[in-house]
Amino acid sequence: MNYSRFFIPTLREVPQDAVIASHRLMFRAGLLRKLANGLFAYLPLGLRSFRKVEQIVREEMDAIGALEIKPTVVIPGELWKESGRWDSMGESMLRAKNRLNNDFVITPTAEEAFTAIVRDELSSYRQLPLAMYQINTKFRDEIRPRYGVMRGREFVMKDAYSWHADEESMDETYQAMGRAYRRIFKCCGLSVIPVKADSGAMGGSGSEEFMVESEIGDNTLILCKNCGYAANVEKASCKNDFAAQTTIESAKAACMNTPAIKKIDTPQVKTIDELCAFLKMDSKSFIKTLIYRAENVEMDLSSAPGCEKLERRKSPADAPSDKPAGKSGVSAYSEAFFAVAIRGDLDVNEIKLASVLKASEVSLASDADVTRFTNAPVGFAGPAGLKTLPVIIDFSVTAMPDAVTGALEKDKHYEHAAYGRDFDAWMTEDIRTVKAGDRCCQCGGELYAKMGNELGHIFKLGYKYTRSMNVSYLDENGKSQTPIMGCYGIGVDRTLASVIEEHHDEAGIIWPVSVAPFHVIIVPIRYEGAVKESADRLAAELTHAGIEVLLDDRNERPGVKFNDADLIGIPWRVVIGEKGLKQSPAQIEVKSRGEKENRMTDLDKTAASLAREIKEELAKFLPVRDNIV
Amino acid sequence: MNYSRFFIPTLREVPQDAVIASHRLMFRAGLLRKLANGLFAYLPLGLRSFRKVEQIVREEMDAIGALEIKPTVVIPGELWKESGRWDSMGESMLRAKNRLNNDFVITPTAEEAFTAIVRDELSSYRQLPLAMYQINTKFRDEIRPRYGVMRGREFVMKDAYSWHADEESMDETYQAMGRAYRRIFKCCGLSVIPVKADSGAMGGSGSEEFMVESEIGDNTLILCKNCGYAANVEKASCKNDFAAQTTIESAKAACMNTPAIKKIDTPQVKTIDELCAFLKMDSKSFIKTLIYRAENVEMDLSSAPGCEKLERRKSPADAPSDKPAGKSGVSAYSEAFFAVAIRGDLDVNEIKLASVLKASEVSLASDADVTRFTNAPVGFAGPAGLKTLPVIIDFSVTAMPDAVTGALEKDKHYEHAAYGRDFDAWMTEDIRTVKAGDRCCQCGGELYAKMGNELGHIFKLGYKYTRSMNVSYLDENGKSQTPIMGCYGIGVDRTLASVIEEHHDEAGIIWPVSVAPFHVIIVPIRYEGAVKESADRLAAELTHAGIEVLLDDRNERPGVKFNDADLIGIPWRVVIGEKGLKQSPAQIEVKSRGEKENRMTDLDKTAASLAREIKEELAKFLPVRDNIV
Repeated sequence: MNYSRFFIPTLREVPQDAVIASHRLMFRAGLLRKLANGLFAYLPLGLRSFRKVEQIVREEMDAIGALEIKPTVVIPGELWKESGRWDSMGESMLRAKNRLNNDFVITPTAEEAFTAIVRDELSSYRQLPLAMYQINTKFRDEIRPRYGVMRGREFVMKDAYSWHADEESMDETYQAMGRAYRRIFKCCGLSVIPVKADSGAMGGSGSEEFMVESEIGDNTLILCKNCGYAANVEKASCKNDFAAQTTIESAKAACMNTPAIKKIDTPQVKTIDELCAFLKMDSKSFIKTLIYRAENVEMDLSSAPGCEKLERRKSPADAPSDKPAGKSGVSAYSEAFFAVAIRGDLDVNEIKLASVLKASEVSLASDADVTRFTNAPVGFAGPAGLKTLPVIIDFSVTAMPDAVTGALEKDKHYEHAAYGRDFDAWMTEDIRTVKAGDRCCQCGGELYAKMGNELGHIFKLGYKYTRSMNVSYLDENGKSQTPIMGCYGIGVDRTLASVIEEHHDEAGIIWPVSVAPFHVIIVPIRYEGAVKESADRLAAELTHAGIEVLLDDRNERPGVKFNDADLIGIPWRVVIGEKGLKQSPAQIEVKSRGEKENRMTDLDKTAASLAREIKEELAKFLPVRDNIV
Repeated sequence: MNYSRFFIPTLREVPQDAVIASHRLMFRAGLLRKLANGLFAYLPLGLRSFRKVEQIVREEMDAIGALEIKPTVVIPGELWKESGRWDSMGESMLRAKNRLNNDFVITPTAEEAFTAIVRDELSSYRQLPLAMYQINTKFRDEIRPRYGVMRGREFVMKDAYSWHADEESMDETYQAMGRAYRRIFKCCGLSVIPVKADSGAMGGSGSEEFMVESEIGDNTLILCKNCGYAANVEKASCKNDFAAQTTIESAKAACMNTPAIKKIDTPQVKTIDELCAFLKMDSKSFIKTLIYRAENVEMDLSSAPGCEKLERRKSPADAPSDKPAGKSGVSAYSEAFFAVAIRGDLDVNEIKLASVLKASEVSLASDADVTRFTNAPVGFAGPAGLKTLPVIIDFSVTAMPDAVTGALEKDKHYEHAAYGRDFDAWMTEDIRTVKAGDRCCQCGGELYAKMGNELGHIFKLGYKYTRSMNVSYLDENGKSQTPIMGCYGIGVDRTLASVIEEHHDEAGIIWPVSVAPFHVIIVPIRYEGAVKESADRLAAELTHAGIEVLLDDRNERPGVKFNDADLIGIPWRVVIGEKGLKQSPAQIEVKSRGEKENRMTDLDKTAASLAREIKEELAKFLPVRDNIV
């Protein structure tokens, strides 16, 4: 391919809004242009790399037996109403009405479409397990699209879905997907961190996120310096610096020598810090008690304190996501309040809390609600004597036989409060937020934190969609059963951008050969006479050997050509000049983009040796496959 | 690929709404499923053929130097407002508003998006000509989606656009596209009819449509039995059975011996047929005069009779599509009326008329309007004495020196009316509809008509988008110029469906090898023991030779397997049974889908000979290329 005919509009200027390397470089190297906020067009050079990432994903999916299909991008709204997500997806989902007033969704994800297809075709257990995928356009109306394609509105996602007769079968596919994902990212030259993830609002057990480290990442990762432990902070746990009491009896025994609980005056003291200063004690001696408001709580609260009057409403997605169909539909409490008690130096992890409650969202209650439930201003909540709502106690509190805590009264606290003796819990759980410096739950090593971006996610969905959309099959005994489902996504644009984040320097991109738009750029010093002839011949020979060649035939100064070659990051650069050709044998210069040194090689031998070198390098990234049919 | 793992849900039943072969067979063979009216999901088998068609298109585009890019499917509404098509596209365009109330278009075509990209990057004449394309999702909200993917709502189109410094350069690319299109359809095994097309509302000169014959086609094609003439009826012309007078002088000379015009009574006579019966004359002796209402007329009417008071309004797309920029913007008349006179036995072609007037739409005027302009009831219009509106005369009327026509008065006609003597025309033009039985304008041969479906369209767009969207570049002299533009589309889904229309029989599809989902299906009579071993080995050998093999490993009766093999239309079928294997040397049966006869071949020699046969057949369809880079 000749450079002059390939439309590579490189830029010297950095786009104003581009704060991360991949965004800057995708624009500067002419891979991408902006159509509107969060909407980008891939130009020819960018599309070549994009397609290579797609193809790597496709081959790995095919290799584990997932079948590619192509549903539409515009999906009938009816399917989303069936699953209940028409209401729950919120404003990030782009909707459209046609001339007949039919509702459509510009698909943000495709559980509904795939499930609808399988529903119509699935009849027998013999068809299971079944895994299908697409690599197709998605749209999510990000409130603040930014960082180029790293957080755009329209993007391409590989989304796979699988259906199974039982959990064992789902787990097999889930594990195979996990291995495929590791290979995909390796093929792209990416260092990913697979982390245990919270399953979030999707509802389900078991999921793993594939993260790359990124200063602008959406996620905080908790990692162990010692062993391989890695988790999203949303779900991370750590080795406790206390011995939790697991029964009321052992807790009572632990506080046998604690003086009797005593109310004390704490005037003008509202925060833990003020309390520490006032009492001259460490925050580890206090129980912090927070009042939370939770929405769409699926957990059963029929016997929870203060919840006697709450009413469950039938939820639209008529199913508990992680259980097979029962006779009764599933329902949720629109709103419920909880007190959460935790050791004063620790923080409550709201995602863990939401997960425990099976709630769609939790947030701190308003001051008015706090006063309503604790009968005191904000700052004096405590578990002792609190009967107006369910009290959830972090394990840390069970290990506090002699604590200070709010006394449900203005300017009053208790000292010598003890779990098991002075107060009980509706539930004891791990709801602490793990922080850098905490100890690894696996090996005791020091944990540290990193910001990460999610590139992929594998997920045991459970029965959420198969139940709400009435999918069934007949088992070996002719009995109707509901299949269990998994889903597995990879963002193609984000993966490509992450490759650039990981592989670049001051001068531009340094493509891994597996996803480079071309393998070699040939730079003739002046594209004429013997230099042109040699450049054309070398390009033809390399092309014939299956190597992808970009020939810089432009009438530009060598400095401009070298800068562009570095910017667009082609893995190998061959420079052909008159001087070298006059030597005997004729010499040309070969340089790899990642290295500083170049080397002179015989013109006549370059095609063969360079093609071999490139193929060896490719083989390090890409698996050698038989024809996949 | 093993059949049992590939999800091919074949059907014995024909879907109720499937009236054409491709629709029936795409469903029955498990290529496609319906998500909603006009929205279809390609299943694994269908997607394989779909991707092959895409790849054929891609390679031909690459081969002529068009560059693939990937804009978004969701396009900002602002771009469509710039071009003026936000208003003119009507309700077939699906629109959406996001949470910020921004307008979006689910793209039905991409002139705006491509032009916006080029506008930002084009600076010099050295960058021209430039041709870019995408193969991407489109959406058009068909009022009556039907015939499966032949007329769906969402579909995949290859759309290419080119920009040029001058018309010669545009014509070169236009011709190259035309040749590429011919190769694409040949590669797919399709017999297309390239026809001269009317350029329709898009505005521009020069276009060609690539049609396939189809009983349910949208288009009427006029074809010559003798020479290669082919045209859309919207633009077809024919050899006239009259000698048109080209000047008023010659017309006057032709009617020298015609008696003076004379008003006659024609009581209760309103139609041409009634008039023929009444006067006992042939309809060829009458001039039929029709009053038309035209919308958005771009033609200059400032000196046209009766149009003195019409006002031009500024059109949103501020440009005459076929002319370079002048200083003044372009405008149109919202509504104007015209009289059209044609020989009594001929019909007015409304598309030709609209094209002549540069109008977005023409339709017969209401009775009230007819009366208003002709001062008489419907049935008595005629060109003689008609001064209230512009009279357009078909060439046929110029050759009528002695005609009968309406006298602009109830129950009155003129006889001996003559063009040039008794009436003049504002314009003389070819506006007749060509019919089967007319004579070819090229060779005089007999014309016939066929219904056709459009698979592709190449089109000289002119300056419509480059002007309305302010695209410019600097020419050799540093002067700012507007590039001229072409556009070129192929419907991928429709092409695939048309292949099935052309290649099927009672039993199912007969895929041309170039777009077959697999090349060979191996059918073991019972997939066990020696039969299984031979089938597996043959599949492996063929796969190793680059042949795509589907191995029917199902535990089904041979009849079921044979029927499915015929239905899904794999070009070669190999049957392996115990009996044949017991012969010495072991024999298996090979049959091509299109032939009735099968042949027995030596098991051990089959892989090599069949691979060779398939590759020879492939070479007949697909061009042999070097690696395209």
